[in-house]
Amino acid sequence: MPAADVLVLGAGLSGLRTTALLVERGLDVVVLEARDRVGGRTRNEQVDDTTIVEGGGQWIGATQTEMYALVEELGLEVFATHNEGENVLELGGRSSRFASDRGALPKLSPFALADLAQGTSRFGRMASRVPLEAPWAAPRAADWDGQTFESWIRRNLRTSAGRAYFRIAAEAVFSTTAAELSLLHALFYAHSGTDLDTLLATDRGAQQDRVVGGSARISEELARRLGDRVVLGAVVRGVVHGDDGVRVMTDDGSTHDARAAVVTLPPTLAGRLTYDPPLPSWRDQLTQRQPAGAVMKCFAVYDRPFWRDAGLTGQAVSDRGPVKVTFDSSPPSGTPGILLGFVEADDARRLARATPAARREAVLARLADYFGPEALTPRRYLERDWMAEEFTRGCYGAHFTPGVWSNYGRAVREPVGPLVWAGAETSDVWNGYMEGAVRSARRAADEVQGLLGG
Amino acid sequence: MPAADVLVLGAGLSGLRTTALLVERGLDVVVLEARDRVGGRTRNEQVDDTTIVEGGGQWIGATQTEMYALVEELGLEVFATHNEGENVLELGGRSSRFASDRGALPKLSPFALADLAQGTSRFGRMASRVPLEAPWAAPRAADWDGQTFESWIRRNLRTSAGRAYFRIAAEAVFSTTAAELSLLHALFYAHSGTDLDTLLATDRGAQQDRVVGGSARISEELARRLGDRVVLGAVVRGVVHGDDGVRVMTDDGSTHDARAAVVTLPPTLAGRLTYDPPLPSWRDQLTQRQPAGAVMKCFAVYDRPFWRDAGLTGQAVSDRGPVKVTFDSSPPSGTPGILLGFVEADDARRLARATPAARREAVLARLADYFGPEALTPRRYLERDWMAEEFTRGCYGAHFTPGVWSNYGRAVREPVGPLVWAGAETSDVWNGYMEGAVRSARRAADEVQGLLGG
Repeated sequence: MPAADVLVLGAGLSGLRTTALLVERGLDVVVLEARDRVGGRTRNEQVDDTTIVEGGGQWIGATQTEMYALVEELGLEVFATHNEGENVLELGGRSSRFASDRGALPKLSPFALADLAQGTSRFGRMASRVPLEAPWAAPRAADWDGQTFESWIRRNLRTSAGRAYFRIAAEAVFSTTAAELSLLHALFYAHSGTDLDTLLATDRGAQQDRVVGGSARISEELARRLGDRVVLGAVVRGVVHGDDGVRVMTDDGSTHDARAAVVTLPPTLAGRLTYDPPLPSWRDQLTQRQPAGAVMKCFAVYDRPFWRDAGLTGQAVSDRGPVKVTFDSSPPSGTPGILLGFVEADDARRLARATPAARREAVLARLADYFGPEALTPRRYLERDWMAEEFTRGCYGAHFTPGVWSNYGRAVREPVGPLVWAGAETSDVWNGYMEGAVRSARRAADEVQGLLGG
Repeated sequence: MPAADVLVLGAGLSGLRTTALLVERGLDVVVLEARDRVGGRTRNEQVDDTTIVEGGGQWIGATQTEMYALVEELGLEVFATHNEGENVLELGGRSSRFASDRGALPKLSPFALADLAQGTSRFGRMASRVPLEAPWAAPRAADWDGQTFESWIRRNLRTSAGRAYFRIAAEAVFSTTAAELSLLHALFYAHSGTDLDTLLATDRGAQQDRVVGGSARISEELARRLGDRVVLGAVVRGVVHGDDGVRVMTDDGSTHDARAAVVTLPPTLAGRLTYDPPLPSWRDQLTQRQPAGAVMKCFAVYDRPFWRDAGLTGQAVSDRGPVKVTFDSSPPSGTPGILLGFVEADDARRLARATPAARREAVLARLADYFGPEALTPRRYLERDWMAEEFTRGCYGAHFTPGVWSNYGRAVREPVGPLVWAGAETSDVWNGYMEGAVRSARRAADEVQGLLGG
């Protein structure tokens, strides 16, 4: 006789939200979390007694309705990402400023601006034709899934500035180079998050708002309400599944039984569990093909947000690493002043092998290029390398390489007996984002209820 | 005090050969094999009391010097793959025959032949410029690794026959669609096995010879000589590693200690073990990006090789699935007559979900298209789905998607403390073949000896 109705593997946003929904519906649920904390790919890093930065997922924004509703439901508050002043744009070694309003034009040659406009427009038209629930059914899916995003960029952008823009976008959005991505995936993903502009924007975009106290508070608050249903430090290794239900083994030898299970681990980790019987090949080969991105978040903490005095938002975009994208990550009060530098893709892979001192120096040097020499002497420097995290192994999420949507797309949400799949990577809307994680929870909860004859 | 000098994980060709070399050098070695048999991706399937077919790796051929030497050293014999008569070529629904000699021209329009010739020549020139020990250092590596093989085909072949040829080649050589492959990987791989013609040829090519009794006899003979050093049924789950050496845990709770270990598992499976400490991110992210191909080998057994009477080799090539490539897989005596049909890539993924009866019917129908209605009534039908094999999870081997050679290539053979990596995927010469597996063994044995201060 199973001790629970449902086991949920992973206490990130999707796992906790799934649990909350199932508990609302009267089911007994146990959440098994490998770490000694909840939150998964969201986490707070303590800067000082009263200040945190978000080592993982950080923003919510336009059209992310489920996240705003959840934040409100939990009694949390949001505040606007600091976006006053001008952004820094550095391309080909030349630096300029441009307004931070969405749609503002950077100072580029008319030729580059025209190129960018036609490329963005063409990409947008294509993206809007990708059906979110079935990207492989897009009108030219075979063609789009048969090439890399990089191939598309080379063929459709004529100026170096235009190409640089799309390549930086790939790194900023996917934590990979454009070379690693299926064009179809890039199109799907942009459409999934409304459009590429929305993904990249702060003003009315994906980086619009933040949660007071940090995004991890969402998971913490969800977990608090779930009480002892959440078991920390439970490292799942084995999953026995069949008509009778599910038995899960953790690495300390304990077992947990239930009628169904929701696996919310990132795909590459979900694929590493030992399943008995082994998973069908379409599922196993899918998770062989969903690698996680390469990213480190680096934070420099200063007494004051000095860049604001110079009329800068703290946002910079550059084609030169190791930091190509930055944000002002100060708390609502603006004190201390905190700059966030993203180290992505090739830069992340290279810097992960450098010494901490060399990495810090390289990151601060780029911040100084953007915001002046004061950036060289933060009072604190923090970083979070998600590639090195045993229970994540890369962020922000998984990407699809060419051919994978076409050949394995149908498997993404397909249950295996009593096993249901959730997580940001399984969502058709806002795939890969906190919003997608929360949306996947509702679908997973519905699937579980269907399985259990609810 | 470790019980052994070296643990070898996996008793396939690379693991057994590594062990043999280390034992020759006076080291104590234990081989842990998950299955109840040796041979890994080679295995015999019993047809009747005296006849086998090879469910996995089947051929050795031109320039595979280590394999020929090993076969001889073990007292085994080779015989020539049946290659007398004409091959069947079916493109765009039109069937023709062409001579089986290497370099023989199929009956295509002069335009298609010219297209094929220029495409093959261009591909060959590019492939020859990829340094085998460092593909990422090729002259145009970023360009070649930034696109799919499919993109190259579309841009460089003008005729449907020319494109079909390269797409079939991709499936036949990699068990994937051309869309899934990095162009750089396709170039590297062809160069690694001499050139594309050699990979595809029977006459003086990779399919030239077979081992009497089946290729699995190589591993069986190697294992016989190693005696009780080979432990079957030892399913490794955990690997603790450090300056003191290695401790390996199997799923029955037993432990094995040694000063070093050689991991010969296919990359995606090597990435699933639990390592303590966790592997560095450059290694973990590499194995997230080395998916295994999709292939089933299907055999139809007849009283006689009836196709030979009609002047046919038993080899067919077609652009129409589910069987696009066939071979005569009869034993040396020619009795019984056996046809092998490869079901690859999209066809494999689709047919893996069909019922066995539907699959058999679909495969035999294609054999009948190529060789006549007698093919519809074999006395036996066998198949091996490598995707479903828990301890392989896809064949023939791993492929590199775009961007992976550039970003993770250096990690392929890089040891982690006392952990050394071997297997066909780690070889610079004949990567992915039995020859590559055996060559990787020599390198791995040398690395181990270096580690142990030999």
